[in-house]
Amino acid sequence: MRSLGSHRPWVLMEQAPAHVNWRERNATKGPGVMRLGSYQAVARGADGIMFFQWRASKAGAEKFHSGMLPHAGIDSRVWREVKALGTELRKLDGILASQVQADVAILMDWENWWALELGSKPSNDLHLLPQLLAYYAPLFKRNITVDFAHPESDLSRYKLVIAPNLYLVNERAAENINRYVQNGGTLVMSFFSGIVDEHDHIHLGGYPAPFREMLGLVVEEFAPYTETQFNSVCTTDNMQFKCSLWGDIIHLKSAQALASFEQDYYAGSPAITRNRFGKGTAFYVGSFPEQSGMDWLMDQACQAASTKAVAPHSPAGVEFVRRSNGTHTWLFALNYSEEEVNVPLDQPGYELLSETKFDKSLRLGPRDVAIIQLLPQA
Amino acid sequence: MRSLGSHRPWVLMEQAPAHVNWRERNATKGPGVMRLGSYQAVARGADGIMFFQWRASKAGAEKFHSGMLPHAGIDSRVWREVKALGTELRKLDGILASQVQADVAILMDWENWWALELGSKPSNDLHLLPQLLAYYAPLFKRNITVDFAHPESDLSRYKLVIAPNLYLVNERAAENINRYVQNGGTLVMSFFSGIVDEHDHIHLGGYPAPFREMLGLVVEEFAPYTETQFNSVCTTDNMQFKCSLWGDIIHLKSAQALASFEQDYYAGSPAITRNRFGKGTAFYVGSFPEQSGMDWLMDQACQAASTKAVAPHSPAGVEFVRRSNGTHTWLFALNYSEEEVNVPLDQPGYELLSETKFDKSLRLGPRDVAIIQLLPQA
Amino acid sequence: MRSLGSHRPWVLMEQAPAHVNWRERNATKGPGVMRLGSYQAVARGADGIMFFQWRASKAGAEKFHSGMLPHAGIDSRVWREVKALGTELRKLDGILASQVQADVAILMDWENWWALELGSKPSNDLHLLPQLLAYYAPLFKRNITVDFAHPESDLSRYKLVIAPNLYLVNERAAENINRYVQNGGTLVMSFFSGIVDEHDHIHLGGYPAPFREMLGLVVEEFAPYTETQFNSVCTTDNMQFKCSLWGDIIHLKSAQALASFEQDYYAGSPAITRNRFGKGTAFYVGSFPEQSGMDWLMDQACQAASTKAVAPHSPAGVEFVRRSNGTHTWLFALNYSEEEVNVPLDQPGYELLSETKFDKSLRLGPRDVAIIQLLPQA
Repeated sequence: MRSLGSHRPWVLMEQAPAHVNWRERNATKGPGVMRLGSYQAVARGADGIMFFQWRASKAGAEKFHSGMLPHAGIDSRVWREVKALGTELRKLDGILASQVQADVAILMDWENWWALELGSKPSNDLHLLPQLLAYYAPLFKRNITVDFAHPESDLSRYKLVIAPNLYLVNERAAENINRYVQNGGTLVMSFFSGIVDEHDHIHLGGYPAPFREMLGLVVEEFAPYTETQFNSVCTTDNMQFKCSLWGDIIHLKSAQALASFEQDYYAGSPAITRNRFGKGTAFYVGSFPEQSGMDWLMDQACQAASTKAVAPHSPAGVEFVRRSNGTHTWLFALNYSEEEVNVPLDQPGYELLSETKFDKSLRLGPRDVAIIQLLPQA
Repeated sequence: MRSLGSHRPWVLMEQAPAHVNWRERNATKGPGVMRLGSYQAVARGADGIMFFQWRASKAGAEKFHSGMLPHAGIDSRVWREVKALGTELRKLDGILASQVQADVAILMDWENWWALELGSKPSNDLHLLPQLLAYYAPLFKRNITVDFAHPESDLSRYKLVIAPNLYLVNERAAENINRYVQNGGTLVMSFFSGIVDEHDHIHLGGYPAPFREMLGLVVEEFAPYTETQFNSVCTTDNMQFKCSLWGDIIHLKSAQALASFEQDYYAGSPAITRNRFGKGTAFYVGSFPEQSGMDWLMDQACQAASTKAVAPHSPAGVEFVRRSNGTHTWLFALNYSEEEVNVPLDQPGYELLSETKFDKSLRLGPRDVAIIQLLPQA
Repeated sequence: MRSLGSHRPWVLMEQAPAHVNWRERNATKGPGVMRLGSYQAVARGADGIMFFQWRASKAGAEKFHSGMLPHAGIDSRVWREVKALGTELRKLDGILASQVQADVAILMDWENWWALELGSKPSNDLHLLPQLLAYYAPLFKRNITVDFAHPESDLSRYKLVIAPNLYLVNERAAENINRYVQNGGTLVMSFFSGIVDEHDHIHLGGYPAPFREMLGLVVEEFAPYTETQFNSVCTTDNMQFKCSLWGDIIHLKSAQALASFEQDYYAGSPAITRNRFGKGTAFYVGSFPEQSGMDWLMDQACQAASTKAVAPHSPAGVEFVRRSNGTHTWLFALNYSEEEVNVPLDQPGYELLSETKFDKSLRLGPRDVAIIQLLPQA
């Protein structure tokens, strides 16, 4: 949502105070969950939090969608939690209009999404969202903040750009991405990218024609896997991981192999490659690695791009995001776990909700949140 | 079927002599199964047993539906079984127009069924028939005969009334049910009852508004469970059982808790309650207990209502039902098992099919039936 | 395909050089697979091998269907394999217009297929193709070449005719099949055959009315099995195997039981029978045996029909087929396995692709093929 508005201020237009009514089974948000979700939106840039609906309806298709005022009336947990949140939000006025800064972007283009998921493809089980998520998840786990960016947008602000399955690219997007790498950017591109133009016509001349030079390779053929078929790769530093869904038959030109396939008629041929292009670096991923492989790959890419985590020594299950307005910086710590955790601080800060100063660390209960205005080092 | 006619005489209009033709795989009725099913209908009040179809058709969509006269002709098991049944039925003329007496009713209303299973509900996996069956099964197992009754019908004849998921109730039905308890009846009502009126509009004022006083409680919110989510309850007499599908957050007014939830943010709050209201007793069940829980619950309710089994010491797999015409009473024993069983008799009787008098007990072969005209104690 | 043309010359009109584009996941044909499949068609009678498509399209719904000339151009495995095959085929001119000789036919009739799979059947899970395959597979494994034949066609050329689930038969077909057995043929007919005429009207007079005399039995009723129901049979030579889908209640007239059911109310009654009729023999199969039962049954039938394998001592995974033009005979050996195998030869021959003479045996690599012009015994 933040990325859709191109870094302009935004508000969360609708969220449910408790349960929705459009799932098969509409589990409710237990105590603290609505508050935590609300602060997640603020942490990631929202300047406002709005609800659907004020009062739970008496009639109609949405009568079992939760409201700030439930059927049960004001003597209810949901009403009390909504009211408490409203009271708390007053303390956060200083944050308004500050920005989230991300060093990493994942390319996301609706035209590509539609084209990729049309039928008659090498694999119709290649869907965009699970691929985006597979690249996003290891970054989220490392507290590396991620924007989503359009392939034709200005990428120069990012240290690392990821292009999962960018099947459809027009000439402008291709030039934009190639220029980004040329000028010193780091790119990770995955299989079945650069295949067609905006008319869904093949970019002829060997896959992926618009990116062959930049990637330093050519893909001769695709070997999609059936549901029961897998491959594995071995990296040059001896990591081994499983791959599913797809294998590219890759011939290296200027690129070097970082990992090679281990099974099938193309065993020994490259699966993951790296290429210097101009001042930048381009990774290519010719298959779909399992999670341990994605972790390894993102570590390689972040290292190449000198990308740093918001909070490198953070406990598991806690998200860290920064907002800044040039004058002040706020560190959000969101505890998604059901355990109380200790949050180490790199510099002292003033926690806005508890109105307390912390020097070295603070404790955060289950589903609790801290919003720390950073103070200069003592 | 018996309950649809409000205690007037009825006949079984259609049954298949052997197999039907509208399932994916139409298994046939093996030897004795059609006869046993026929007597089940008679036991439960039918004054006649009719078949579809006389002669298996030569052509058309129903040519593979069984007929009394199969394609194979009269040198066939099916024809011989139909003929034998016809001969036997002559012995049962005395039973005609006698009535089945039930002390228990399950409330069943088509309007509620339709409304309950419309979409956009807290849980769309809440279906009426499995709930009815979950309450019916332990009663069937205990040989307690059950009627189905409309919520607006005269309930005064029943010792125990069960209202599973009576989501939609109009004012007349609500008054009728409340009056039934007030006047000394015993009611078991389950979660998501009394929620809307006949226009599918919420009964405002706290769930379940029309029954809050009678049940002695208020339900603050619903916590439907996902497919992988469960809870468990512990009763005041230390029974423990699993619950699925739904949890109500219940606040007691005059009711007392019989069982409490053990997990989630409402752990310790009531799951099953009992309330005195006027001369009667109302149970409320705020979740969907597993079978052992339903057994426990029905034992509590039957005890409170002084409901008695037709044949308390009956062997497993044998159903007992009574028909009576004021002068005579007939005890039907139907052996659904594949074992010969011993049927103890509380009083002597004359078995109509074998034309034999039995004093203390009789033997019943697999799939066999006994129809015993009870005689005065010696 | 060969059988559709009634023994006239034919060509394979379309095959994919590598992958298709109409499956959910379009795995490609690895090295050697396209060549092996091409020679399979030639072995079974094709006089030509054609491809869809020449050049992989730049646009349209079939742009990810493989072409002889892939998007990658001529520096590609697929192009090289297509070119190599074209070069090789020149060596096979002598084979043109020669014929495949089969001693066995499976009856296959589109009218029956349609009628059998219309709804409202005893079992709607009875589909024709899995049944055909269940009879075909053991013959394929034994290197016994099989034609498919229409029920009204001249069957006198076959030693063995198999009629799986020939539900619909008109008078001409019935007479034709009965005459075939009368004149000395061997027939295997399976359950639910001879049930209706060409108007889908029951052949009255006891199932299967048109074949009762020839089979020497009558089927009183059908007992289709549910998904979780099975039976087992025991043969007179003490083989035991599981049956699924269907059981016929069979009464013997002149036939003798070769196997009997072991479970359910018809335990002990015949499941598989044999009958002498005129100069021939008719087997009847009143259920659907598991694979070991089909093996046993086909051994019985082939023995009764004196049917012989093309290559009796062949290694597993290798298919043998013969083509002949009266003057010369060619033995095709197709290695579907991933192992190199030793192929024993009954007589010396000249292998056309390697242009080499072999006396006693030859070696065949994974996915390799040999086309041996047989020479007179030394």
